[in-house]
Amino acid sequence: MVTLKDIAAEAGVSITTVSNVVHNRSSRVSPELVAKIRSIIDREHYVPSMTARTLVNDESYIIGVISHITPQNIGSTMSDPFLGSFVEGIEFRTREEGYFLMIRSVEDARALESLRRSWKLSGVILTGVFEDDFFAGVRNLGIPFVLIDSYIDAPDVYNIGLEDEKGGYLATKHLLENGHRVIAFASPSIRAGGVVEQRLIGYKRALKEYGVPFDPSLVYTQEIFVEEGKRLGHKLAAKPEITGIFASADILAAGIMTGLREKGVLVPRDKSIIGFDDNYLCRLTNPCLTTIHQDAEQKGYLAVDMLLSQFRNEPLAERSVILPVTLIERESVRNLNKQ
Amino acid sequence: MVTLKDIAAEAGVSITTVSNVVHNRSSRVSPELVAKIRSIIDREHYVPSMTARTLVNDESYIIGVISHITPQNIGSTMSDPFLGSFVEGIEFRTREEGYFLMIRSVEDARALESLRRSWKLSGVILTGVFEDDFFAGVRNLGIPFVLIDSYIDAPDVYNIGLEDEKGGYLATKHLLENGHRVIAFASPSIRAGGVVEQRLIGYKRALKEYGVPFDPSLVYTQEIFVEEGKRLGHKLAAKPEITGIFASADILAAGIMTGLREKGVLVPRDKSIIGFDDNYLCRLTNPCLTTIHQDAEQKGYLAVDMLLSQFRNEPLAERSVILPVTLIERESVRNLNKQ
Repeated sequence: MVTLKDIAAEAGVSITTVSNVVHNRSSRVSPELVAKIRSIIDREHYVPSMTARTLVNDESYIIGVISHITPQNIGSTMSDPFLGSFVEGIEFRTREEGYFLMIRSVEDARALESLRRSWKLSGVILTGVFEDDFFAGVRNLGIPFVLIDSYIDAPDVYNIGLEDEKGGYLATKHLLENGHRVIAFASPSIRAGGVVEQRLIGYKRALKEYGVPFDPSLVYTQEIFVEEGKRLGHKLAAKPEITGIFASADILAAGIMTGLREKGVLVPRDKSIIGFDDNYLCRLTNPCLTTIHQDAEQKGYLAVDMLLSQFRNEPLAERSVILPVTLIERESVRNLNKQ
Repeated sequence: MVTLKDIAAEAGVSITTVSNVVHNRSSRVSPELVAKIRSIIDREHYVPSMTARTLVNDESYIIGVISHITPQNIGSTMSDPFLGSFVEGIEFRTREEGYFLMIRSVEDARALESLRRSWKLSGVILTGVFEDDFFAGVRNLGIPFVLIDSYIDAPDVYNIGLEDEKGGYLATKHLLENGHRVIAFASPSIRAGGVVEQRLIGYKRALKEYGVPFDPSLVYTQEIFVEEGKRLGHKLAAKPEITGIFASADILAAGIMTGLREKGVLVPRDKSIIGFDDNYLCRLTNPCLTTIHQDAEQKGYLAVDMLLSQFRNEPLAERSVILPVTLIERESVRNLNKQ
């Protein structure tokens, strides 16, 4: 079998240089040398043994994308279009940089620690982490990690987040500007330190700006599956005083729309609704859904970049990158001022 | 560090027995012994080194889920709700059986072979494989593989498929039964040996049964992204003679519906449409989409089972498991006989 050493000898360069080319860290090597080394690799059919390298380097170049299984989240990582695009961004970027992607749901911090040790993971990307025992376990892994959408306020946390509060504010303000005053807030269960809490804070800020008192009975929490969304739609259909709905996920908004329609309540004629995410669903509902835009694929991409910076000890401008949100107007909000 | 040998010595059993418990092959060990070994493992904080084991066993217990990047498919593995559910099924089942899941897009057979050698993959699951050079590479990997939705007719192929021809037949027949005679067939590009070809054969069989001649100008091929679906909707809106549409994916059907609506053509009033897949989209479109049901998560689950049978040299009743399809009636087909 051809080894790294053989390739290096033939190219007249160091093993490190060949390794950089093999693992796509070509920016450190001149284009001419990259071409020369690649042609030798091609001719000799050289393939690196990642497992041997893992034992030597004590890391595997595997990045784990981890989903924490909780009673609220049964490890459902992929069906949601947000998560699908997010993982797509991660797969693309890890491949481009010579890393590998392992997907895993874990029940607790111990399962995560076992996974890290079993595979000598280089780093992990985690969604839905709160300040609890599981997070303590993440911290104790001793490898770089990046949290997605975390509001944990600690100096050692790397995070890719979103302007959640602003998103909630923009959505609610848009309904208020269009004359709505009784606005329901629909979301999955609201956990302290989670994105939904922030979106609710933004909802409250907009209400306050318009002099509308916050009414806790207008907060509807509901798991974001289609059938549950439909049932919430049935419930909201029986409340004619509610003219506006802000749903904290597009898939929930779309489910509510179907439920409303089943009860003869039409969007936007009878009720207006705004979603959150701006995934492809928004262009497939009828009417098309007004929503708050975020870029899920970009989140995955940036999460890998933030891990890479840690691997390479590159300085980071910020430990927390907060992506912007914008309001995307489509057809699901009616202007009550014009009636 | 505690080793497998230490645990075995303390439990008074063989290393193989401990290994079976560690890697969730507990069915071979009595429940009492499993409990005893687990408690020792817990107390000693034993974690197996997968990389060391990989070097010894020459396989890693990693299952690769591989997407072949082609000009038609740019490695987009996850955004489609079908693929999301499919990967979810695989993640669940691999974890349950003590395996690990690596997700990777590859450009060609050589990249796949490198991946196998780098990681000593135990097996691979592949979507979208045709009888070409890439398939030749899959065959030469020398490890168990399972294809998804393949129509490659070879004795060494393991496949999880679907009654595609019947699905196309049922969808088209349903439109014919409801009085439609000019029925468009909308799908991504039709490749010989692919699922779409089979669905088209089913479409033709139904037409023939009803004495309707096949008209190639009614076949519209279109990538299954939302904007492309919408554009096809615009095109079909200008063809009043077409009253029925069979779209070979729900996401394409939903895009067509949005495009039709943008041109003032309503479903099912002006045109009837049937999708394929029965993912959650069908319950979020307005009207809800009549479609052909398949279980994507089950496909992933069964693909892992078929790999496991190969790993364990268990006899298989069939090398190709064909999952059934059913017609799910919702609201998108109008009965022209009743007008």
